[in-house]
Amino acid sequence: MVKVAVLGYGTVGSGIVEVIKTNQKLIDERAGQEVDIKYILDLRDFPGDPYESLVVHDAEVILNDPEVSVIAEAMGGIEPAFTFTKKALSAGKSVCTSNKELVEKHGAELCKLAKENNCNYLFEASVGGGIPILRPLVSSLTGDHIDAVTGILNGTTNYILTKMDEDGSDFDAVLKEAQEMGYAERNPEADVEGYDAGRKIAILASLVTGKNASFDKIYTEGITAIRPEDFAYARAMKKMIRLLAIYREKNGAFYAYVAPAMIGRDNPLYGVRDVFNAILVHGNMLGDAMFYGAGAGKLPTASAVVGDVVDAVRSLGKTLPGGWVEEELELTDHRVRKKRFLVVVAEEEAETFLQVFGTCDKIDAGLKGEIGFLTKEMDEIAFEEKSSKINNVITRIRVED
Amino acid sequence: MVKVAVLGYGTVGSGIVEVIKTNQKLIDERAGQEVDIKYILDLRDFPGDPYESLVVHDAEVILNDPEVSVIAEAMGGIEPAFTFTKKALSAGKSVCTSNKELVEKHGAELCKLAKENNCNYLFEASVGGGIPILRPLVSSLTGDHIDAVTGILNGTTNYILTKMDEDGSDFDAVLKEAQEMGYAERNPEADVEGYDAGRKIAILASLVTGKNASFDKIYTEGITAIRPEDFAYARAMKKMIRLLAIYREKNGAFYAYVAPAMIGRDNPLYGVRDVFNAILVHGNMLGDAMFYGAGAGKLPTASAVVGDVVDAVRSLGKTLPGGWVEEELELTDHRVRKKRFLVVVAEEEAETFLQVFGTCDKIDAGLKGEIGFLTKEMDEIAFEEKSSKINNVITRIRVED
Repeated sequence: MVKVAVLGYGTVGSGIVEVIKTNQKLIDERAGQEVDIKYILDLRDFPGDPYESLVVHDAEVILNDPEVSVIAEAMGGIEPAFTFTKKALSAGKSVCTSNKELVEKHGAELCKLAKENNCNYLFEASVGGGIPILRPLVSSLTGDHIDAVTGILNGTTNYILTKMDEDGSDFDAVLKEAQEMGYAERNPEADVEGYDAGRKIAILASLVTGKNASFDKIYTEGITAIRPEDFAYARAMKKMIRLLAIYREKNGAFYAYVAPAMIGRDNPLYGVRDVFNAILVHGNMLGDAMFYGAGAGKLPTASAVVGDVVDAVRSLGKTLPGGWVEEELELTDHRVRKKRFLVVVAEEEAETFLQVFGTCDKIDAGLKGEIGFLTKEMDEIAFEEKSSKINNVITRIRVED
Repeated sequence: MVKVAVLGYGTVGSGIVEVIKTNQKLIDERAGQEVDIKYILDLRDFPGDPYESLVVHDAEVILNDPEVSVIAEAMGGIEPAFTFTKKALSAGKSVCTSNKELVEKHGAELCKLAKENNCNYLFEASVGGGIPILRPLVSSLTGDHIDAVTGILNGTTNYILTKMDEDGSDFDAVLKEAQEMGYAERNPEADVEGYDAGRKIAILASLVTGKNASFDKIYTEGITAIRPEDFAYARAMKKMIRLLAIYREKNGAFYAYVAPAMIGRDNPLYGVRDVFNAILVHGNMLGDAMFYGAGAGKLPTASAVVGDVVDAVRSLGKTLPGGWVEEELELTDHRVRKKRFLVVVAEEEAETFLQVFGTCDKIDAGLKGEIGFLTKEMDEIAFEEKSSKINNVITRIRVED
């Protein structure tokens, strides 16, 4: 029998307990032994909760109990999760987490610590919620050189963009609706500015390269400037606007950035709607593979943490492949990557636009007073320089293949 | 250093050699040691081939060489692959394969043999080509009870259906075109009659339940009866026609079948076009997750075999979780599962149809002389009984959610 502790009894933490208790028999079989929850750490008490007797308030009880060999961390945030995780790993206890902030910031150090202590730091739930993506990357796609990862990694923004497209509502109205439905936080900045997706692409880039890709070096552009009118241009181009988190390796240079983009019907991310997430991976032998599912939510996220718990139990005493080292991954200025742009300008600027940009496809979305153009492929530095010569640029959106 | 042998130097076999040689450095790192191809088994010689010196004609050379610890089997068919695989596993050599016929027919026995000899029988490439699906099922989704698997598991038929939809061509014309482009075999029966998809859903059902689901007990219906006109009904219903391989568990009963079906836009399989494959998995905690990619092709398939080779090297001397036992999975008559049907009848039969089936949604695809109806949900036995009372049923297609 393996004793497990759950840190944090909020949404994800209580989900972890629910997943284990609901599927106990299957989980025990797959883990190869009984998986028993011994402790739940939380500052609060939970009178009447069926597992209230397991609740402790002091992390030291768990960290000093030699019986506990696997910990599911669902506290979120850097501290005290970071300190607890370090202590647990130092004591040879494996830690499974959904905490993307901590994984992004200290993943390299924690992976190293796990290795030194023959245990595991596993974080499948930190990217794409319930979608199996990290383990397939490190244990299935091992015959491939992965040179591109493109993700719809944030459900809130994907929901907002889907609704703006379908209902023609503007950003603020849909955000408000999403907040009322619980799909968006009251403080939505991390989602709508692309920070959440940025942390996740940092984790993916780190795992793919084996070096540390820092979120604070990743350019992020959110969706707050997207107008309902922009979807009319997307429709005219048979494309969809999505917030993409992008990692690319090309000729030895590495790029990572987050920005809204137009994608076409041939891109499998085109059909990813509502709160769903998906990650498109390109390997030099495999070509494209996509992983799709619920990117958040109590039970899907908890399901991924429990999958890690089973893996940790199966491999007690042995560190699994995966993780990355602290050496910094050098990211190239994302603006160097060439792409096309949809540019919408005031009608009276059309002539100036064509003088500056040369021949461009005109995109007629049937809107009064404005006109869209699809530029040729160019880098963003050239684009910005040209664009600065136009007086009235209403919007510009990148076009990704 | 680990010595590997490749059995069969055809499309997939030469792909395996190409993947290992192209990504040698990465693969060695991930495997934890050098992966060296010592032999290639084929009846033919390959003069001028860069690896011609590795070619042997006698399997015994490989099977009796104690240096060889991992074998990649890409011969296809039951014999002699079955005999070679048994001998290899009995000698403690792990076998990685893309051979779906063999996996479907003798997977349980071969998994058992691998376990008895502390080695592995791995077959990621046998379902969905390059798409990582089997390993995620047995090593990621371990916190979940998987109660549904729905797959587009055959690229040839998906290509044909996509072209019929887009170009309005009929089945025979598109099949011929697909054969000319190399997307369909000269003898296309296994693909177009759904046998290939049937073998793959048998493997998936076996892996999910841990018992043996036999292909010969799985109902298969192919796409040869699908007319170009049927896509007009699909469009009128905002649906898509796809050949689905379906596994379901409901109230302790297990169903598996292959048949063309209408699916709606909310189904993530809706957007899977051309030769691509995708597998939608439902877990009781996770909800839906989908795995998408190239379901066939030399390098994607080889990439999956090589991923298994890396896993086999990483776990030498130890059998990984997965596989199933020989006990037969009892499948319930698929006709018991309730669903709706699109039924197209000759115009003059419309009245009789409504008398027999009661109120139905009329589907107007604007076609002369015929009319479509969407039935209420019913089992197939009731449907067939009612349907037999109508004189001129032009077509009927299942509607799956």
